[in-house]
Amino acid sequence: MSLTIPALAGKLAGLQSSAIRDLLKLTARDDIISLAGGLPDAALMPRERIALAADTALREPAVLQYTESSGWPALREVIAARESAKIGRTIPVAEVFITHGSQQALSLLAEVLLDPGALVIVEDPAYVGALQVFRAAGARIVAVPLDSDGMRLDVLEDLLAAGERPALVHTVSTFHNPGGVTLAPERRRRLAELAEAHGFWVIEDDPYGELWFDQPAPAPVASYSPQVIRLSSVSKILSPALRVGWMIAPERVSRAVELLKQGADLCGSALTQQITTDLLSDADWLAAHIASIRTTYGNRARALVTAVRSTFADRIRCTAPTGGMFIWAEFLDDTNTSALLPTALESGVAYVPGAAFAVSDTADNSLRLCFTTSDEQTLTEAVTRLAKASSA
Amino acid sequence: MSLTIPALAGKLAGLQSSAIRDLLKLTARDDIISLAGGLPDAALMPRERIALAADTALREPAVLQYTESSGWPALREVIAARESAKIGRTIPVAEVFITHGSQQALSLLAEVLLDPGALVIVEDPAYVGALQVFRAAGARIVAVPLDSDGMRLDVLEDLLAAGERPALVHTVSTFHNPGGVTLAPERRRRLAELAEAHGFWVIEDDPYGELWFDQPAPAPVASYSPQVIRLSSVSKILSPALRVGWMIAPERVSRAVELLKQGADLCGSALTQQITTDLLSDADWLAAHIASIRTTYGNRARALVTAVRSTFADRIRCTAPTGGMFIWAEFLDDTNTSALLPTALESGVAYVPGAAFAVSDTADNSLRLCFTTSDEQTLTEAVTRLAKASSA
Repeated sequence: MSLTIPALAGKLAGLQSSAIRDLLKLTARDDIISLAGGLPDAALMPRERIALAADTALREPAVLQYTESSGWPALREVIAARESAKIGRTIPVAEVFITHGSQQALSLLAEVLLDPGALVIVEDPAYVGALQVFRAAGARIVAVPLDSDGMRLDVLEDLLAAGERPALVHTVSTFHNPGGVTLAPERRRRLAELAEAHGFWVIEDDPYGELWFDQPAPAPVASYSPQVIRLSSVSKILSPALRVGWMIAPERVSRAVELLKQGADLCGSALTQQITTDLLSDADWLAAHIASIRTTYGNRARALVTAVRSTFADRIRCTAPTGGMFIWAEFLDDTNTSALLPTALESGVAYVPGAAFAVSDTADNSLRLCFTTSDEQTLTEAVTRLAKASSA
Repeated sequence: MSLTIPALAGKLAGLQSSAIRDLLKLTARDDIISLAGGLPDAALMPRERIALAADTALREPAVLQYTESSGWPALREVIAARESAKIGRTIPVAEVFITHGSQQALSLLAEVLLDPGALVIVEDPAYVGALQVFRAAGARIVAVPLDSDGMRLDVLEDLLAAGERPALVHTVSTFHNPGGVTLAPERRRRLAELAEAHGFWVIEDDPYGELWFDQPAPAPVASYSPQVIRLSSVSKILSPALRVGWMIAPERVSRAVELLKQGADLCGSALTQQITTDLLSDADWLAAHIASIRTTYGNRARALVTAVRSTFADRIRCTAPTGGMFIWAEFLDDTNTSALLPTALESGVAYVPGAAFAVSDTADNSLRLCFTTSDEQTLTEAVTRLAKASSA
């Protein structure tokens, strides 16, 4: 008798392996400069400091045992203190929930907050990992475009005025992936007001906020309303291999997520959570470490933007990032970036076509470039190769 | 406007925080001997060997980067070799999928293999973490009782003869949690035959198989059919804080799980997966390490069984475990173990009432005792306290 995988037809319909991850497999070749990745630079991750923290942590047997589903208590304390400072009100530990990267928070929240068919508002272009989760949850997805100040709230207000009733609005508020932009302070306040007026949740997905170049990111959307659930992680400032993300959410949401987390994977790693506690508690070291990443990424971002602008002049418009890991560029001459990709790979450069992130818009002429894992000279060479490919 | 958590009413209905985990919170008091836990002994976990492996691993930046959703390649190789030896056929790496503990494999498999309303056969008493997952998936759950040879296949065959068509059968095949028993070899073969004849999947959930006392566990159910998806982990032999479990499954199932894993949490930790690779590859050390756990747990199990039998004589019938972490005991005099628990806690001993694991049977007179985290003298004292409580 032949065996079926019944749920595939339903839940996985329309779900496809993330275009970014598939590209990553193609671009591992040594002769390709990949600006496609979206990874932080492993060379900047604090290996020695983590080794020291691991050694210290392993003096206690408790770090090798199962821990609480909501997270290692010491880590929740440290995160509560840090987030209280960011959000500008005292966040009780009960509102801090540690997840396996912030992706897990997104996934569990979708299960808790969404019934099939619920309306979810995303940004266009969107973070692909969020789209994947909301599609798997059976949500109806409507996209609101970005401009240079982040999500266009005038479009969101039009949707609300037309009677749309979102269950939640998802925003990568700061140094957007892939859009490169940051939600302006006045829009943050307004988004929170709309959430309260219309009774929807906001998920503020903020993995990049610490990676500012010249001045700190604006106060989180979560500072304007407790209806904003805030996600972040140490993946971009320490290491993704710690698998430490978190969610700041009202206690009743955290408790519901806790029940699902038990079924999903019981609990996280006390070991990597204690290592993270150690590093986040070492204030002077941490400040210097993050400052060093900011300087390096800032230099790379400037080198990439300079190369794009001087090479392509009026042919491309691109963001000038003030932080994060990405620039978003758009050919103004109808170059189709999906069609260009094979030629670009032949020329030795990889990027992600805008179409991979597009929801309603097609983003056919756009592309995402990641500046984190190449030095300035390599980034400049990558742009030279891209120019060669696009004029072939 | 008041905010709702709509999906709670649906998905979380009937889901409740695991009784075991709630009990754990109650039994942290120093004056209570807890046989309730179900945790491996942290004192037996190889802290120094893990510290050494962490230090070695951290010489390479790659261990701090994101890794593949299917797992760290070197770990998949090591697991493929180990599982090939156990299962008795060559398991290709493509059939090895690393998860965040085997609980995550169970959870992702339920999403992939079950449509709402699908029939799932579980054991009675059942592993609570499996029940939680299958209930959350909206499955219809039917339980088949255990006897001293494991799942009663005659009852399963009666269900099949009556026209029941399970999508999957879940079994903790070896050193059952909570039942303490092991599925007999002839039943393993028969279960695989039934799966092939009737077209259902079997999930062989085997976290305890390495913890045998006098002789190795029988060949896995998975050795009799590729329709048996096999789960295991290092949580009970190395440390749960590594959060390394795995699934051995046909490639099309693994690929479907991979798509869901990307949405669920992107990937596991390259760091803890490389540490695990190191430890599992160190054959002589590993053999000696596991042998030492077997000896310690074997001594504790015998001490507990001896104490129960000599103290309660004909009042209790209990399993004589040949491995694993638990004994399952039943009062033969109608003592209700849920009703007894508060008195037992007052007397300074904790256990889990059978009702916490019961599906169709009530298991009102049964209890699960975990022998892993107390020494022989303490286990004997725990039984004395239990006797005092039950005669009060």
